[in-house]
Amino acid sequence: MPQGRPEAVPDDGKTTRQRRNRPLLVVHTGEMKGKSTAAFGLALRGWNQGWDIAVFQFVKSAKWRVGEENALLALGGLHERTGEGGPVQWHKMGSGWSWSRKQGSETDHAEAARDGWREIARRIAAQEHDLYVLDEFTYPLKWGWIDVDEVVAALSARPGHQHVVITGRDAPPALVDAADLVVEMTKVKHPMDAGQKGQRGIEW
Amino acid sequence: MPQGRPEAVPDDGKTTRQRRNRPLLVVHTGEMKGKSTAAFGLALRGWNQGWDIAVFQFVKSAKWRVGEENALLALGGLHERTGEGGPVQWHKMGSGWSWSRKQGSETDHAEAARDGWREIARRIAAQEHDLYVLDEFTYPLKWGWIDVDEVVAALSARPGHQHVVITGRDAPPALVDAADLVVEMTKVKHPMDAGQKGQRGIEW
Repeated sequence: MPQGRPEAVPDDGKTTRQRRNRPLLVVHTGEMKGKSTAAFGLALRGWNQGWDIAVFQFVKSAKWRVGEENALLALGGLHERTGEGGPVQWHKMGSGWSWSRKQGSETDHAEAARDGWREIARRIAAQEHDLYVLDEFTYPLKWGWIDVDEVVAALSARPGHQHVVITGRDAPPALVDAADLVVEMTKVKHPMDAGQKGQRGIEW
Repeated sequence: MPQGRPEAVPDDGKTTRQRRNRPLLVVHTGEMKGKSTAAFGLALRGWNQGWDIAVFQFVKSAKWRVGEENALLALGGLHERTGEGGPVQWHKMGSGWSWSRKQGSETDHAEAARDGWREIARRIAAQEHDLYVLDEFTYPLKWGWIDVDEVVAALSARPGHQHVVITGRDAPPALVDAADLVVEMTKVKHPMDAGQKGQRGIEW
C-alpha cells in the first residue's frame, strides 16, 4: 500500500507546505480510455474539498461522457441545495459552447475549439475555478487548431491556486514539459480486440 | 476524437448486443495513481446507469481515498432520496470491515483481507451488485494472503451480469489473463520526483 514519501527534497527555498499546495498541471495521455475517467475521478476528490470545478469537453458528440456529466452535475446540484462539496460546471463543444451565441450553428470545429480555449484562458486569468478539466484537449493542439505555445504560456503564468487537468492522446512535448504530473494510460488488453463494441456504463 | 469501432468481429455465434452487454472484468495496474481514480470514474458512469455499486478497499488507512468515498456516498444518498442514479456502498478494511464483528480489533491484515474476499465472493455468487470495485486488491494477491487461482475461478464463473474492477500494482499474470480489459498506468513525470508530497484534493 503506497506511501506518499518523496525520494528527494529539493533545495528551492520553499517549505513542504508551499510545495504541497502548489497548483498542478496534470496531463493524462496514452492510447487507453482511463485518461478522461481518471480526470473525472480527480474531480470527485476536488468536489469533496469544496473546489469550484469546471469541465470543458473538446468533443463533437454531445452524448460523450454523459454518465460522468450527469453524476458530476448531480454532485454540483447537491452543493447548490445543501452546501456539501463544491460547485460543478460542465461545458461541451458538441453543439456549441453553452456561453456562445454561435450555439448549435457552429460547424467549424477549429473555430469552436479556439472559442473554447479563449474562454478558458479568460477564466484562468480571472481565477474563476479551482479545477479545470480540459477533456480531449490534446486533439485541437495536435491538429494545430490551437497554438501549443500560447496554451503553455497561459497555463504556466496562471495566477493563484488553480489546478488544470488535460486529457487526450499524443500530448504535445511542450505540454508534457510544462506539466507537473503526466500519466500515460497504456493498453495491455482491450475487449475491442475481441470485436466487442463499447457498452453502456462502461464506455459512456 | 476516438470512435468505438472494433477492428474485427469474432465468429462466436453471439450478436453484437450480446457481446456488448458482456459483464467485464477490468484491471487497472501499473505504477501510477490513476488506477483507483479511473475505477471511481467508472463508478460515476455506473451510478448514472442506475447500477448498484459496491466498493471494497483493501487498504489499512481509513482516510485513504476519503474524497472519492464522500463524493460517491453523496451520490448514493441522492439515489436514496430521489431515486436518481443507483445505490452506492463503500467498505474498507482499514479499521475492520463494516460487516465484521471483528471491527476495530482486527490486527491480522492477512486474515482481514481474506474476510473481505470471502464476503465479496458470497455477494458475487448471490449477484448482490452490478459493479464491484476491489481497490488495491492486487496487494493481498501479490503477498499470497488470498489465493489468486481461487479468485480467478470465482470471478470467471460469476453468474449474471456483474462488472468487476480491480486496482493495484503488479497484477498477477493469472488475473491479467482472466481480465477482459487491462489498463496500465505508467509514470511519465510525477511531482514527488521534485520532492513534493501529496496534497489535499489531488492525492486524497
